[in-house]
Amino acid sequence: MGKVKIGVFKCGNIGAAPVFELLLDELAEREDIKVRTVTTGSKMAVEDVEEALPKLYQFNPNLIIFISPNPAIPGPTKVREILTDKGVPGVVISDGVAKRIKDELEKQGLGYIVIMGDPLIGARREFLDPIEMAIFNSNIIKVLAITGVLRILHQEVDRLVATLKEEDTSLNLPKLLVDTDVIRDKSTFSNPYAKAKAMAAYELTKKIAEIDTQACFIEKERGRYIPLVACAHEIAQIAARLAEEAREIEKSLDTVVRNPHSKKGTPLTKTRLMPPPILDEEIYKRWLKTLETEER
Amino acid sequence: MGKVKIGVFKCGNIGAAPVFELLLDELAEREDIKVRTVTTGSKMAVEDVEEALPKLYQFNPNLIIFISPNPAIPGPTKVREILTDKGVPGVVISDGVAKRIKDELEKQGLGYIVIMGDPLIGARREFLDPIEMAIFNSNIIKVLAITGVLRILHQEVDRLVATLKEEDTSLNLPKLLVDTDVIRDKSTFSNPYAKAKAMAAYELTKKIAEIDTQACFIEKERGRYIPLVACAHEIAQIAARLAEEAREIEKSLDTVVRNPHSKKGTPLTKTRLMPPPILDEEIYKRWLKTLETEER
Amino acid sequence: MGKVKIGVFKCGNIGAAPVFELLLDELAEREDIKVRTVTTGSKMAVEDVEEALPKLYQFNPNLIIFISPNPAIPGPTKVREILTDKGVPGVVISDGVAKRIKDELEKQGLGYIVIMGDPLIGARREFLDPIEMAIFNSNIIKVLAITGVLRILHQEVDRLVATLKEEDTSLNLPKLLVDTDVIRDKSTFSNPYAKAKAMAAYELTKKIAEIDTQACFIEKERGRYIPLVACAHEIAQIAARLAEEAREIEKSLDTVVRNPHSKKGTPLTKTRLMPPPILDEEIYKRWLKTLETEER
Amino acid sequence: MGKVKIGVFKCGNIGAAPVFELLLDELAEREDIKVRTVTTGSKMAVEDVEEALPKLYQFNPNLIIFISPNPAIPGPTKVREILTDKGVPGVVISDGVAKRIKDELEKQGLGYIVIMGDPLIGARREFLDPIEMAIFNSNIIKVLAITGVLRILHQEVDRLVATLKEEDTSLNLPKLLVDTDVIRDKSTFSNPYAKAKAMAAYELTKKIAEIDTQACFIEKERGRYIPLVACAHEIAQIAARLAEEAREIEKSLDTVVRNPHSKKGTPLTKTRLMPPPILDEEIYKRWLKTLETEER
Amino acid sequence: MGKVKIGVFKCGNIGAAPVFELLLDELAEREDIKVRTVTTGSKMAVEDVEEALPKLYQFNPNLIIFISPNPAIPGPTKVREILTDKGVPGVVISDGVAKRIKDELEKQGLGYIVIMGDPLIGARREFLDPIEMAIFNSNIIKVLAITGVLRILHQEVDRLVATLKEEDTSLNLPKLLVDTDVIRDKSTFSNPYAKAKAMAAYELTKKIAEIDTQACFIEKERGRYIPLVACAHEIAQIAARLAEEAREIEKSLDTVVRNPHSKKGTPLTKTRLMPPPILDEEIYKRWLKTLETEER
Amino acid sequence: MGKVKIGVFKCGNIGAAPVFELLLDELAEREDIKVRTVTTGSKMAVEDVEEALPKLYQFNPNLIIFISPNPAIPGPTKVREILTDKGVPGVVISDGVAKRIKDELEKQGLGYIVIMGDPLIGARREFLDPIEMAIFNSNIIKVLAITGVLRILHQEVDRLVATLKEEDTSLNLPKLLVDTDVIRDKSTFSNPYAKAKAMAAYELTKKIAEIDTQACFIEKERGRYIPLVACAHEIAQIAARLAEEAREIEKSLDTVVRNPHSKKGTPLTKTRLMPPPILDEEIYKRWLKTLETEER
Repeated sequence: MGKVKIGVFKCGNIGAAPVFELLLDELAEREDIKVRTVTTGSKMAVEDVEEALPKLYQFNPNLIIFISPNPAIPGPTKVREILTDKGVPGVVISDGVAKRIKDELEKQGLGYIVIMGDPLIGARREFLDPIEMAIFNSNIIKVLAITGVLRILHQEVDRLVATLKEEDTSLNLPKLLVDTDVIRDKSTFSNPYAKAKAMAAYELTKKIAEIDTQACFIEKERGRYIPLVACAHEIAQIAARLAEEAREIEKSLDTVVRNPHSKKGTPLTKTRLMPPPILDEEIYKRWLKTLETEER
Repeated sequence: MGKVKIGVFKCGNIGAAPVFELLLDELAEREDIKVRTVTTGSKMAVEDVEEALPKLYQFNPNLIIFISPNPAIPGPTKVREILTDKGVPGVVISDGVAKRIKDELEKQGLGYIVIMGDPLIGARREFLDPIEMAIFNSNIIKVLAITGVLRILHQEVDRLVATLKEEDTSLNLPKLLVDTDVIRDKSTFSNPYAKAKAMAAYELTKKIAEIDTQACFIEKERGRYIPLVACAHEIAQIAARLAEEAREIEKSLDTVVRNPHSKKGTPLTKTRLMPPPILDEEIYKRWLKTLETEER
Repeated sequence: MGKVKIGVFKCGNIGAAPVFELLLDELAEREDIKVRTVTTGSKMAVEDVEEALPKLYQFNPNLIIFISPNPAIPGPTKVREILTDKGVPGVVISDGVAKRIKDELEKQGLGYIVIMGDPLIGARREFLDPIEMAIFNSNIIKVLAITGVLRILHQEVDRLVATLKEEDTSLNLPKLLVDTDVIRDKSTFSNPYAKAKAMAAYELTKKIAEIDTQACFIEKERGRYIPLVACAHEIAQIAARLAEEAREIEKSLDTVVRNPHSKKGTPLTKTRLMPPPILDEEIYKRWLKTLETEER
Repeated sequence: MGKVKIGVFKCGNIGAAPVFELLLDELAEREDIKVRTVTTGSKMAVEDVEEALPKLYQFNPNLIIFISPNPAIPGPTKVREILTDKGVPGVVISDGVAKRIKDELEKQGLGYIVIMGDPLIGARREFLDPIEMAIFNSNIIKVLAITGVLRILHQEVDRLVATLKEEDTSLNLPKLLVDTDVIRDKSTFSNPYAKAKAMAAYELTKKIAEIDTQACFIEKERGRYIPLVACAHEIAQIAARLAEEAREIEKSLDTVVRNPHSKKGTPLTKTRLMPPPILDEEIYKRWLKTLETEER
Repeated sequence: MGKVKIGVFKCGNIGAAPVFELLLDELAEREDIKVRTVTTGSKMAVEDVEEALPKLYQFNPNLIIFISPNPAIPGPTKVREILTDKGVPGVVISDGVAKRIKDELEKQGLGYIVIMGDPLIGARREFLDPIEMAIFNSNIIKVLAITGVLRILHQEVDRLVATLKEEDTSLNLPKLLVDTDVIRDKSTFSNPYAKAKAMAAYELTKKIAEIDTQACFIEKERGRYIPLVACAHEIAQIAARLAEEAREIEKSLDTVVRNPHSKKGTPLTKTRLMPPPILDEEIYKRWLKTLETEER
Repeated sequence: MGKVKIGVFKCGNIGAAPVFELLLDELAEREDIKVRTVTTGSKMAVEDVEEALPKLYQFNPNLIIFISPNPAIPGPTKVREILTDKGVPGVVISDGVAKRIKDELEKQGLGYIVIMGDPLIGARREFLDPIEMAIFNSNIIKVLAITGVLRILHQEVDRLVATLKEEDTSLNLPKLLVDTDVIRDKSTFSNPYAKAKAMAAYELTKKIAEIDTQACFIEKERGRYIPLVACAHEIAQIAARLAEEAREIEKSLDTVVRNPHSKKGTPLTKTRLMPPPILDEEIYKRWLKTLETEER
């Protein structure tokens, strides 16, 4: 296979969405993939989906990543149906609400990465304007980045790309629920308190989801929901700060793990700042083993 | 006209890009616009552009927003040519490098918003991995949001939408260089020190651009460029913090200006947190006057 | 009636417990009450309770305040039984776990103040030593103080004392669930963002409870529960900081509301720092009205 | 001997008092001690003492810990007389004012731990309300915890308990003045700057004492004493933050020393976060040697 | 009189010394004074003084400001003698140690400003190098600036200059002890908590003096004095931060009082940031009245 | 040669000036040098220079250090002429503006240290008063200290002194441009992120220079220049904080390099806090080699 073509479809927004494609090719130097994205902005109605998604197929993608909040509502449901129909391997990346339709996703033959700590925004007109929206996303992106959630996202796609490059047809699509235990067990913090701070930041994003859900869907009076969305966004701010604290500790120890992509798309790794990155053989072998497992 | 269809084309990334569409419809409730985005991820070669951009025209957009860094290099140059050829009104949103081709943009009949403080990332493989990239974008988004740069972006598009809704054909496309003087003269801080902090944050993003340009294009030895990109990203972090400080002051005074969109897309405004937003008549009239001016 | 005698019985600890008596007479100058406390330290077995509680009755209290975590387990259950038997008016102050036995408490004729945001500590021997325990309590005390929860505690007791001083026999015992809505609706922040920060701090304490419950009662492996308790205590630290931020805003506006006790025990109030406090007539009348209501 | 019974008597408050009993059994799992506390709230008059203290003796304590500020005034003096009369081994824990009566304490056969950095609160009605009081205590508790002062407190009592468990009658009661040199020479910081910060925090608490003494006892005009008590509490806040900084350094190095109690009450110790604690043989032997010394 | 010639003599260093001359003419635009400084660096022996001071008189100063720590030791004592002998009006600016020789200074006919919060540095070779020295001075300068101590310094000299310009021979030399009460009663903070923070910062500098005195003159062992000087400099750092917090509050309220000099040297004043400064008539009249008083 | 006599002449101010002499003898115990300074305060006109500089020669200095901003304007130009005429070896220490006259300085036979990151102050009367000036200098001093710029200054002078003590007549005068690359390549940070933060702080000071130059010399309207100088000083504040962060990291690792002077003036060095400093043989030999090179 030449370049692996990755189609990304986004409707609506979650914290992991705005920088998603950039995660796959942060240096814009990968020679093994081509990424095309089609989105419908913040809208996610059935008609938006029906108009926009077909355009993505025109790129003949080898893999489709579908990112949206709450994939159980009509628009995203339509997307999932089309994904299943068309047969191109697809992975759904979504927020905690998606946990409920896990079984359905499996039945539809779709992979999924459910990010439990990717919270609903405080979507009340008295509070949310474009600036507040951007600040909130800034904070959530920082938490998802530092906790390693964004690393999981790109490494799962990188793994699929590695398989596709071997022209393997039976992809092992991810089936992941990214909750705090994943941060605890899989993240690469060298200092246990840095890890605890990162876990704390992630727990806070779940708390934001809880509060914003109440503020957006349950409370009806302005005097009741405005303080709640403001409170949720305060937590987003402090969660970002807590994540930053975690990374600052690792920086002070010169133990920040970095995983840049090589030009060929192989996974690199490095820890100390000054030396160059090297091939992450451990991960790469694991991916290949997966491949082997699949091939047998 | 029914809904105004806004086509967004992104190739490569600048800080203002990841959340751009969301700025136009932060509550996902606007009934007057339809937004469709096509992107090529972090790649911006001519072939990427030629493959992807035509898909956007399939949506029959009334207005095209093109976002990329450095619009003078081949890929983005191709985009600009196509935009001019196709004739749909187009606005280029780009970083400080674009300042050099201002005249060319005017000749091509394109509007532009050049964000002087949207800096190059520290794109060195020893330093930049997907996580570091996301953190950097998080910091820049925060600065662009709080300084009001993102507000300028959406209000310029909102203004064009307002004109288009009047079925006015001669759009007054923006020709803006967003430098620190714009933050000074146009932002809505009530406290002068908050404004000074915001200006400082914005100046820092320009400094980042300067350092990263040296680190990415001039320095050739690892021992020389790694400390520089690390230094630039430290400035990004502290710029975000400084911007946050500015907003915290406004919050402490309950003077945060918010400009949510109404369902109809009219510009709302509010200052104190608890009351509801109202129509921003001043801005709206200014837009209409522009309209009138154009119509005469 | 001369001085009202308040008996306080504590077994085990919650965040509101260590400074509780001091809240009633912070200047040690009240002439209308006498406070006596008997506690069993951190132990709360039936035998501890049976040995210690009777000593409290030797002081002939007019009112008994019983403070413990989880009042549904045997020791505290025994306390509640004794309280009901003895007939001295009693109020149970407890943490969120107590919510479940609200009805039972009412049946037992006991008042209650259930503090939803008074969290379980990270009671794992690998993590919790006396120092960590004290730091945790320090953080929780700060959150409970600044959010106004501690004010609710003392004002409820103050109100009962006011009633008892009128020799009123039918006390209107409190039946309060102190959740975030109470901070939202009853706290005295003048700045809405300060209030939002306080609410956020309180929400975080509830999150701590959630995590520590999992870490202490569900997770069995050291490698799993240690990071969780460490994570919970990080949240406690940042919650305290967030609460502090809230108060700093009010300080910057010179709007910190203070409610010292007068020598006679009447409720005083003041806002600006430099002037003296005055009688809080509004509150006092409300208490008297309660009295009247009761008397009729 | 079965369980050692520890009676705690508190009248008035010092920073070390609110969490004192909890220090002895932070996990509520010790099987070798029984703790009973009787307190008189913030009052410390002779009549309070005379009424309350006898109740403590009803528990037949093997050891009495008496905690109060300024033990030279009438109420606490009465307590000390009773302690001497009754003959149960007693230890006075008090603030810096107690330094003056050291010799008297020795003559009375009482042990003592004088905490030079446990400061007077800003007890002026215009400033101190229950909330401010709780915040102040929160800050002081944090300083006393992180500097290791609270560890000294519980280890001294633990040592006495160890002796009593050996049924040794001639206890080696502590005679300690806890000043900054003790933090310098005995604390367990691994990083010298963390230690310097802790020492600084402790020095600040002494400064608070100095200022509050002037504000409470010397200045007579509101315009003069209010700024002073406010100033003192600002120092308390920043002292807590400084102490926190010290601990954060140790956390970043994973060198936080923890000394939890085992179920049997033996002193455990650990440094790195993830491994389990082990018996602190060095300390334990020192205690036993003390025992031996005493026995000879 | 033409320009008033101010001679400044410094031997040794105090926190107020490095920027002293600059305080008198911060914009370098005053036309009414001429400032000449001669210093002996950090040395302050009799021989240094005897060699250097005469050079200052060659400028024929109308007023001499002498700045040094501890003016009671031989070198500064020599300076004071010469000042008295030569008869040019002289003012001694010194640190808290100078308090002891107040009466002597008066007898010598010298004015004085004793800055109680200008602390001894941690002058131990294991700790103090040029960098640490500069950082310490940076912190102390910030505290002295924000608390208003430096304003007192320049306004006292400005006042003398105003008198001298009237060719008045009987100068009313300052006799000031700048202790915390001066910050409380004379500083220009609009917010009482900002003032309390400034007072706290100043109190901390006094604490530094206390600790450094012990570390430099009393403790003899490295293991004892190094932690003490490190502790003192930590306090300097946090004192600067506390002062900064105070100013940040005033900035957030746009109430920072500024007192620039006009070209003519008259005292200007302003509070809000954006408007221009105006003549501070109140102060100016007070100075003139002093003049009148003196003239009668 | 006996003591080396160092004459320092300052006119006008740069950030490195206020503490300069103190850098040479921070402990006031050096026996090998004598430092005398003459300054003209903030003024730097030709007449100031002509009156004041001759006094410095009366001390018969062996070396003259001349510190001023912008050495190309008339006053400092006059100083340079006199320095060349008189023939005593001279070194000019100045800010980035001096870069332009590098060649001229060489022709004049003067050494130079051009500190690119020693920025112009925000010298606008609406903003700059003595307090603001002192705060700005405090911030710049901290940056110059922590980044190691001040160390370069004193070590260059120390080196010259070492040569002069050997009675070597042909001094190797410094010709240094201190830009960020010097911080990168010569500073003694052990942690690469601490170094990056220090570099960032230094870059910010260059940004300040840029903004203040615009504000002081280009912008003519109050509404335009006030926000700019305020913005520049905000950057100064955050630059100082960033530098502090850098040093805090080194403190947390106990790797702060200290270079105190011995009594004999030889260069000492130490890294860990508690041990004593030792002779820095590497540096000393380098200086001696320079000597040898010169002698041949």
